[in-house]
Amino acid sequence: MLSVSEARARVLDGIRPVGHELVPLLDGWNRVLAEPVAARLDNPPADISAMDGYAVRGGDTQDGAALRLVGEAPAGHPSAGTVGPGECVRLFTGSVMPDGTDAVLIQENAAVDGVSVRPTEPVAAGRHIRRAGQDFASGDVVVAAGRRLGARDIGVIAAGNHCWLTVRRRPRVAILATGDEVALPGDPIPPGGVVNSNTPMLASLVRTAGAEPVMLPAAPDDVEAIARSAAGALDADLLVTLGGASVGAYDLVQPALARHGLEVGFWRIAMRPGKPLMHGHLRAGDRNVPVLGLPGNPVSALVCGLLFLLPALRRLGGEENVEPELELATLATPLPANDQRADHLRAALGRDEAGRYLVSPFTRQDSGMLRRLAASEALVVRAPQAPPAAAGDTVAIIRLDRHGL
Amino acid sequence: MLSVSEARARVLDGIRPVGHELVPLLDGWNRVLAEPVAARLDNPPADISAMDGYAVRGGDTQDGAALRLVGEAPAGHPSAGTVGPGECVRLFTGSVMPDGTDAVLIQENAAVDGVSVRPTEPVAAGRHIRRAGQDFASGDVVVAAGRRLGARDIGVIAAGNHCWLTVRRRPRVAILATGDEVALPGDPIPPGGVVNSNTPMLASLVRTAGAEPVMLPAAPDDVEAIARSAAGALDADLLVTLGGASVGAYDLVQPALARHGLEVGFWRIAMRPGKPLMHGHLRAGDRNVPVLGLPGNPVSALVCGLLFLLPALRRLGGEENVEPELELATLATPLPANDQRADHLRAALGRDEAGRYLVSPFTRQDSGMLRRLAASEALVVRAPQAPPAAAGDTVAIIRLDRHGL
Repeated sequence: MLSVSEARARVLDGIRPVGHELVPLLDGWNRVLAEPVAARLDNPPADISAMDGYAVRGGDTQDGAALRLVGEAPAGHPSAGTVGPGECVRLFTGSVMPDGTDAVLIQENAAVDGVSVRPTEPVAAGRHIRRAGQDFASGDVVVAAGRRLGARDIGVIAAGNHCWLTVRRRPRVAILATGDEVALPGDPIPPGGVVNSNTPMLASLVRTAGAEPVMLPAAPDDVEAIARSAAGALDADLLVTLGGASVGAYDLVQPALARHGLEVGFWRIAMRPGKPLMHGHLRAGDRNVPVLGLPGNPVSALVCGLLFLLPALRRLGGEENVEPELELATLATPLPANDQRADHLRAALGRDEAGRYLVSPFTRQDSGMLRRLAASEALVVRAPQAPPAAAGDTVAIIRLDRHGL
Repeated sequence: MLSVSEARARVLDGIRPVGHELVPLLDGWNRVLAEPVAARLDNPPADISAMDGYAVRGGDTQDGAALRLVGEAPAGHPSAGTVGPGECVRLFTGSVMPDGTDAVLIQENAAVDGVSVRPTEPVAAGRHIRRAGQDFASGDVVVAAGRRLGARDIGVIAAGNHCWLTVRRRPRVAILATGDEVALPGDPIPPGGVVNSNTPMLASLVRTAGAEPVMLPAAPDDVEAIARSAAGALDADLLVTLGGASVGAYDLVQPALARHGLEVGFWRIAMRPGKPLMHGHLRAGDRNVPVLGLPGNPVSALVCGLLFLLPALRRLGGEENVEPELELATLATPLPANDQRADHLRAALGRDEAGRYLVSPFTRQDSGMLRRLAASEALVVRAPQAPPAAAGDTVAIIRLDRHGL
């Protein structure tokens, strides 16, 4: 059986980022930048004042000097002429420095009487000035390609005078649940059946990565029916199946997808919950749709979704950083040695008195307990064959209460 | 001057959550639940098998026994009759336990020969069964009100058989930039002017909280013009102004908003960057619109937005947890003692060999440097009068590379 990291590397190897599209700046938030953005101007555009005060020649501000106030230059109203020796101009944060001046006398250090300004402290040339291009110069790359744009990125791209952005289009991700026993919420539930929580949950997981879920009609345990519904994935960027991907008597996903050219990469990995994870591609002519077959158990589906689907979606969407982020936490209770499968223990996350993460794995780790998974703040990641751990030991966790999970 | 936490408490005190609306389950992702959701059925709906194997009476599985295979009950196809002594039924993960059986003999422990099944190990009554209602029982609250719904929440709500949700409507947040010198990206820039990065950046910040930005036309430094544009905020849930909120000669926001009934709560706090933060309410008749006046400097606007606006938006949107989350990190370089204002140092965040956060505040903390803010992974939070800190000390940080910031 494959290790988690080996399996993830293989999944990611088979993914090419989707194409790009143009969006207005404001729609660029939370999208992935497809091309680097270079500034179209210097910021600041000229030498400007960093404070409210007076534009002066620093050499004029020695003890006992009285400067003549010759004008005012609020932000957006630069002064036209040149300021001469012994003169000064009133200005404010963001005002352009007038020609002839080289420093800002802050207003706290100025005694003003009519048009006479007396420095109470001398000021050195260059003080309190933000230099033209100090933040960035025209042509500088202000945001690199592959970055999911946050509010700060939108700010710096705006400052660089861009109102259109080239981003990756949203990947289309088909989701196909299988099983005779599943019914969508609100639909009639067959005898012995359960509600299909997987399709809405995985559609939401797809949205956390900024991708567009395409929910295919759930298929009963029938090769023909699965193949028919899966045809809806042939123009998608990725297909996720739920349930039936293993090789048991009622695991019909592999034979059904074989009709669409499925080439199976692997179909099980050394982890818990979620051993039966199938990976492959639907290949025919120049079509190549990556397939991830997740377990039908909702807890296993979500954990496998976090470890494999989410990184695949990020890669598909053109992001640079795709791996789940590990944090360190102090274990609140001991853990026994682990077996040969990597384990992902649902856990509550708190803080100790010093503010450090304190993690408490739940005693019962039944993968049938979806409510408990929803209430978990973290997964404790246990390597295969990990030795017993004591309370107070440091362990690796993945936080679940982030990223829309 | 107010402390950051006192100021935030005052801002939050003045906020009432917005009303609710109904959305389809799938649109509930990343929305804030307005009412608790109680399950409409038991999950599992009946005792089901946790494994692939055979439904048996545990007492029948002693050494040397041979059980008669009398049927098969795949998931979704419960077996109708009662299983008698010495009999067994083939079943799979998720199959309903047939009447008369009390344990699952996993297939790895069964030697099968035609219709004869020989246990290679005895199995105790109750083994490998998920009990009806073990995950949740009908009527159990599966998700509490006030929670921003993640994929796991959507999953457990679906499992509880809900296809509609009552969530908070999206707060409408008006954004009004002021200043003679600002021009939107792509628009003509006046002499001595700069690009208005604040409006798009703050609109994006508003989106991080799931709220809807209403961008008002930027107003020049003129009381009439600011009051006119601010009229667009009278039916909003909150007004954010950018620049001009202090009490200097060109700080016209307070007099302009006075025409709409502004009552000022406070207008400066002991922090850096961003001292001039104004808070108040537009009050007239039964109208009461909270106002947050952020500094015009983009770096200060973003940091104040993170510390004050974002918690206010979360409270407005009905969320329970609204405060910025602090993490602990090891300082990579020493820091001098802090003065009387809380400081928020832009910093790069890495990991040490053990995987712990290692934070490196930038040497230059000029609040004119928006590109540097965009490239920062964290803010180091320094309390007023904090003593000098050495490399290796633990400091509090706020991560910036999350939550769409």
